[in-house]
Amino acid sequence: MTAVERQSESGKARRLSELAALVSGEVLGDASTLISGVAGLEQAKAGQLSFYGNQKYKKQLGTSAATAVLVPRDNEPSDRGVVYVRVDNPHLAFARIAQEFAPKRTYVPGVAAGAHVDGSAVVDASATVMAGATIASGARIGARSVIGPGCYVGERARIGDDTTLVANVSVMEECVVGSRCLFHSGVVIGADGFGFAFDPSVPAHIKIPQTGIVRIEDDVEIGANSCVDRATTGETVVGHGSKIDNLVQVGHNSVIGPMSILCAQVGLSGSTELGTGVVLAGQVGVAGHLRIGDLAKVGAQAGVMSDVDDGATVLGAPQMPAKDFMRSTAIFMRLPELSKQIRELQRRLQALEQETNKP
Amino acid sequence: MTAVERQSESGKARRLSELAALVSGEVLGDASTLISGVAGLEQAKAGQLSFYGNQKYKKQLGTSAATAVLVPRDNEPSDRGVVYVRVDNPHLAFARIAQEFAPKRTYVPGVAAGAHVDGSAVVDASATVMAGATIASGARIGARSVIGPGCYVGERARIGDDTTLVANVSVMEECVVGSRCLFHSGVVIGADGFGFAFDPSVPAHIKIPQTGIVRIEDDVEIGANSCVDRATTGETVVGHGSKIDNLVQVGHNSVIGPMSILCAQVGLSGSTELGTGVVLAGQVGVAGHLRIGDLAKVGAQAGVMSDVDDGATVLGAPQMPAKDFMRSTAIFMRLPELSKQIRELQRRLQALEQETNKP
Amino acid sequence: MTAVERQSESGKARRLSELAALVSGEVLGDASTLISGVAGLEQAKAGQLSFYGNQKYKKQLGTSAATAVLVPRDNEPSDRGVVYVRVDNPHLAFARIAQEFAPKRTYVPGVAAGAHVDGSAVVDASATVMAGATIASGARIGARSVIGPGCYVGERARIGDDTTLVANVSVMEECVVGSRCLFHSGVVIGADGFGFAFDPSVPAHIKIPQTGIVRIEDDVEIGANSCVDRATTGETVVGHGSKIDNLVQVGHNSVIGPMSILCAQVGLSGSTELGTGVVLAGQVGVAGHLRIGDLAKVGAQAGVMSDVDDGATVLGAPQMPAKDFMRSTAIFMRLPELSKQIRELQRRLQALEQETNKP
Repeated sequence: MTAVERQSESGKARRLSELAALVSGEVLGDASTLISGVAGLEQAKAGQLSFYGNQKYKKQLGTSAATAVLVPRDNEPSDRGVVYVRVDNPHLAFARIAQEFAPKRTYVPGVAAGAHVDGSAVVDASATVMAGATIASGARIGARSVIGPGCYVGERARIGDDTTLVANVSVMEECVVGSRCLFHSGVVIGADGFGFAFDPSVPAHIKIPQTGIVRIEDDVEIGANSCVDRATTGETVVGHGSKIDNLVQVGHNSVIGPMSILCAQVGLSGSTELGTGVVLAGQVGVAGHLRIGDLAKVGAQAGVMSDVDDGATVLGAPQMPAKDFMRSTAIFMRLPELSKQIRELQRRLQALEQETNKP
Repeated sequence: MTAVERQSESGKARRLSELAALVSGEVLGDASTLISGVAGLEQAKAGQLSFYGNQKYKKQLGTSAATAVLVPRDNEPSDRGVVYVRVDNPHLAFARIAQEFAPKRTYVPGVAAGAHVDGSAVVDASATVMAGATIASGARIGARSVIGPGCYVGERARIGDDTTLVANVSVMEECVVGSRCLFHSGVVIGADGFGFAFDPSVPAHIKIPQTGIVRIEDDVEIGANSCVDRATTGETVVGHGSKIDNLVQVGHNSVIGPMSILCAQVGLSGSTELGTGVVLAGQVGVAGHLRIGDLAKVGAQAGVMSDVDDGATVLGAPQMPAKDFMRSTAIFMRLPELSKQIRELQRRLQALEQETNKP
Repeated sequence: MTAVERQSESGKARRLSELAALVSGEVLGDASTLISGVAGLEQAKAGQLSFYGNQKYKKQLGTSAATAVLVPRDNEPSDRGVVYVRVDNPHLAFARIAQEFAPKRTYVPGVAAGAHVDGSAVVDASATVMAGATIASGARIGARSVIGPGCYVGERARIGDDTTLVANVSVMEECVVGSRCLFHSGVVIGADGFGFAFDPSVPAHIKIPQTGIVRIEDDVEIGANSCVDRATTGETVVGHGSKIDNLVQVGHNSVIGPMSILCAQVGLSGSTELGTGVVLAGQVGVAGHLRIGDLAKVGAQAGVMSDVDDGATVLGAPQMPAKDFMRSTAIFMRLPELSKQIRELQRRLQALEQETNKP
């Protein structure tokens, strides 16, 4: 293997003052404290920095072994010697500081022995192609991109700069992937969309050729074993900055706007359009040929059967406003009681009717 | 890589008269029009042919840039210069004509350098085995079949003629795959069925050896990262002409009849039997040891807990006739109102009872 | 390929007396009968042994061609010449005996030509690394373990003894896998957890580095294309003896106790804790940061939104006690009737009110 990972200097301890400055934080305590790394409240050890952004974790805040904790601006100082750092958004500040400590992976550029690169493919000299990877004819790999073991980049597919395909990833022919993308193991980009027309005279399902492509914009992360199908004609699109979790299905000709979030096991049928900043929670299913508006949120396991307005928060299958769903569900849970109340009403009413109609 | 793709002549423009003849179409306009390709109504450009088969897309029909459109037999001629072609089934006619234009991939036959083929495997001279593929002992690969990069064909497995395993596909030992099949990247055929017996004396889940196989009949397409488990004993079967979308799970000893359709993320438990022409929409789950009858349709996200009759259309979890489910769901959505009506009835009835029983 | 499979002597016929002794069985008939193998009641042929553990299969018991059948202790002898073997737990006894007949696979130890093993990796001399597999720097592979074609073991990852990664499995850097584990094709261990913090000032989702690991304990089986994400910090854990089916998602920092069962397409969000012996049926979704108690059972497609008590059996989304869910669902199915009853009550009550208030 020509690609060798080397640990960066990221393991070095840093002054809290320096870290706080990165996130415009106010240190409530000794700003010269040395911080060796970051961790969640429960996992943190002495010397580490953690964050507290949600009152649900008040108990963990009180017992964490962290030396320093990022807290909201209005948080009281610690009463047990922990150094608090007040910031606007503890979760975001944690992300920024965690990146300072994260090990940086470096790769030896070049095509490893044991990689299979077609003579007509163009691999940037700064890119890394690992053993067991295959780059087909006419494909292009951008600067500093990494094509991991077992990955396949199909004919005339294009991969931008600083993009990583981890392992056993397939990017099929003609598909286009932007820069700074990260596709985890087993991702499949550009398998055929699922399109058939039934011919009763054979009988058989006749395949509709899927001759479109997938276009993934910049800064997209896609989780392990997720699939984005190629368009029947035209493009299936994942907009810039969108993040897709594991085992997600994106059907042909779907268009996902920028900065959307698709949690694990979500399924989009064909020709679905998602706006900007949409959030689909885990296991959501979305029917075809409809639109989910900008900043809409869809709760876990919901089944979206019709358009969703910009900014709406919906739940259920078919989906409804989240509050309504919660009210209906609360009553669903006591339906046996309701049914009994109705029978009781019938009995009493009948008694009353007989009473009233007595001669 | 020994396998080189060459574009066929499929890119050549064709006379509309010639295309219409393929689908017994009636041309309403200039039959000598040249058609350069096909596309959906919204994606089509001048020179292309599209189709209109569903009134939902009337608006797109009115604004499409397509030069010609396949329409139903009773469709009025176009009032804006588009050439309509009347056919019995526009969707099916589109599939047939799209196949005329689809690029045909051709592969250089032979085993590529960088492929790993056991000496006892039998690979037809006209088949293609790409770099990074592994063919285990005793396996057989039929005429003109293509085993893509990273694919694994296990011991004594058999692949028919004209079948393609795209990339990183696993077909495990002893499994049998028919002819003209297409398995997209990441498909796993013949992983162990999920069978254990709990032994409280250890305690441990004791594995039930999965010694059966999977048999996939001819003309089956299976989507990216879908799984068909091997039988405990006997066979798990996917019938001829059935089409399976991405991320589908087919449990051990399931038997899927011919020409069935399983949409993305469907899950079949063990020993499920599907008849002929069954359609399971996305994310449907089916419990084990039951039968879904011929031509039955199961709506998205349904949970099938008992047998489904031939020709039935069901929805919900547990499933019910689709119409009943829709009626019940409509009332579910206004349960808070129903609950209020019941309280109101209770109040009024009580008042009336007091009135009636007044001395 | 250096790894050659050889069939063991397991195909040899065995005396029923000998098999019955393995499971403390009482033979009702000729204990010298030769048994050539095992199969389900419907698949079994003459000479084979089957099992009957559930009254649902009484019909199949009556028609099975099996020569011998494992039955419960209180079962009557066969009236048609089949030799019954009375045991405490027919399913478990079947598992034990089936293992006697299952073909044992043996592998030639060593690193195959066409495998890519970093010079700093440590592969036990008795382990097998197949062609197309990649072992990264500092990784360790234990005794008699098998790393199949297309598998990737990342930097400093550790694989215990007698563990098999079937094909195209990825175990990412630093992750730890125990002994006697079996990971089917396409499994991904240690992809990044799904963690981002939104920065409206860019705007962008900022990645929270996922620097923790996955730890899989001993005797864990994981089905095809399932994913276990690495922890943000700390560990994601799958406890010893747990069994995970295909296409399952285990989110970052989840902790699955020992001997739990996760059926196909289950999804766990982040930081979920499962106790010992938990059973999640197919397509269950579990929200983050909650606990499912020891021996709890969650029914298919349920959506777990809050903690589940030890030993509870729940269904629905959000989950409720299974009996309550079934009662509510029965009424859901006849909601149109309930709605009609309410309207009828309203009509009759109004009539009665008018009657009563008549002057």
